[in-house]
Amino acid sequence: KVIWTVVVTILGYASSLPVGEDALCTAEQLAKYRIIFTGKWSQTAFPKQYPLYRPPAQWSSLLGVTHSSDYSMWKKNEYASNGVRDFAEKGEAWALMKEIEEAGEKIQSVHGIFSAPAISSGTGQTSTELEAHPRHPLVSFVVRIVPSPDWFVGIDSLNLCEGDHWMDEVSVDLFPYDAGTDSGFTFSSPNFATIPQDTVTEITCSSPSHPANSFYYPKLKILPPIAQVTMVKLKKSQPGLSAPFINLPAKSNEIIDTVS
Amino acid sequence: KVIWTVVVTILGYASSLPVGEDALCTAEQLAKYRIIFTGKWSQTAFPKQYPLYRPPAQWSSLLGVTHSSDYSMWKKNEYASNGVRDFAEKGEAWALMKEIEEAGEKIQSVHGIFSAPAISSGTGQTSTELEAHPRHPLVSFVVRIVPSPDWFVGIDSLNLCEGDHWMDEVSVDLFPYDAGTDSGFTFSSPNFATIPQDTVTEITCSSPSHPANSFYYPKLKILPPIAQVTMVKLKKSQPGLSAPFINLPAKSNEIIDTVS
Repeated sequence: KVIWTVVVTILGYASSLPVGEDALCTAEQLAKYRIIFTGKWSQTAFPKQYPLYRPPAQWSSLLGVTHSSDYSMWKKNEYASNGVRDFAEKGEAWALMKEIEEAGEKIQSVHGIFSAPAISSGTGQTSTELEAHPRHPLVSFVVRIVPSPDWFVGIDSLNLCEGDHWMDEVSVDLFPYDAGTDSGFTFSSPNFATIPQDTVTEITCSSPSHPANSFYYPKLKILPPIAQVTMVKLKKSQPGLSAPFINLPAKSNEIIDTVS
Repeated sequence: KVIWTVVVTILGYASSLPVGEDALCTAEQLAKYRIIFTGKWSQTAFPKQYPLYRPPAQWSSLLGVTHSSDYSMWKKNEYASNGVRDFAEKGEAWALMKEIEEAGEKIQSVHGIFSAPAISSGTGQTSTELEAHPRHPLVSFVVRIVPSPDWFVGIDSLNLCEGDHWMDEVSVDLFPYDAGTDSGFTFSSPNFATIPQDTVTEITCSSPSHPANSFYYPKLKILPPIAQVTMVKLKKSQPGLSAPFINLPAKSNEIIDTVS
């Protein structure tokens, strides 16, 4: 019986490993990426209760981390940390930065933190550079949806490494999540703490299944992506800027028209 | 007469050079710094019209750059660029990031861009890491005061290099500036473009000299600092995090009490 329990535990752990786990990364030293976040939260795509005033639809700063599988910034169907709660509810990054720092110091599970400036409208872009390490090839980040009770978009533990090489470019559509800490139903709901705290859940066009919900679109099968993120590997020793841009348009919302 | 003009021009240029210009930096290769921005915009220190709602007093993302004297992000008594205008008025970083990128590509005057997450209250902290280069030892950054017409705090071309070595720690008190692009008088003034655009000016307790101004405190000689920035040189090859924190308090506003 004891042996059986151990086997189940090992299997349970093994089956929870994402494909291409970081233990398998045998790539060369370090990789630098430019990460470009594109907000696609337009009134056309999301007409219901679209926030126009005080504040209008916008995105918080982006806060991210490169890490090993020993660290998790946030995970679907698990409870959000206090840091993620503060960030998802208020855009306050400090507690989350401290959590990342502690994971880096105590269990060496973090390579680096990165952040990108906020976007002052629902559609627009922001960008920064990140560095991944063969022992820390996973990327996670969060961006708060503003205004909202505790809603965010993000990536959880995306592996930039494939065996012995780094991916050249990765692009992912992003959909809204509820941090499970505030029971507000609409973008501009007043604060109303969820007690006990709920887990992180994806918000879809049918869930929460209530007509008052800001993302409830009963005629849709799936929501359009509310944002998109692209990570592009940078060549070594690029001249000029150490964090070069990659032919980005002059205005942050120009790319929106060409992409969608 | 022609010769005289040339001499005046050269003298004018020489006298505008800050002490310890980057041409004189003979320090070793690169230096990494942790930059910590501390908001001190409390209702106690700045009781007049202190913004409590929609939005309450807070700070935008921090956007900064390390550069040579061939680049200037912003300068007192000069006109703000379009990028600085967008950032000071709306917290929109894209145009400013593009300006920096172009300065980096065209005249190699930029080493790198850095940003730190926004702060969701008037008192609090944010932090990130920056890298300076002997040919690009100057630091500039901006943080928008939210809410405000076009007010910001920041640093213009602070030299981190002193001859053959990098400074270990620098701390600077910050005071509010008006970008000169919006004529609003108070934190929550509606948008009202300044045409023609005015230059960047420091806001003091007596200037603009009008009782309606949010920072007009006729009984004070000088305003208390509304924020503070500290840059601490990081030792090479620190373990764990590539961007280590330096014993920061658990809550971003704890340090406020001990400092002030």
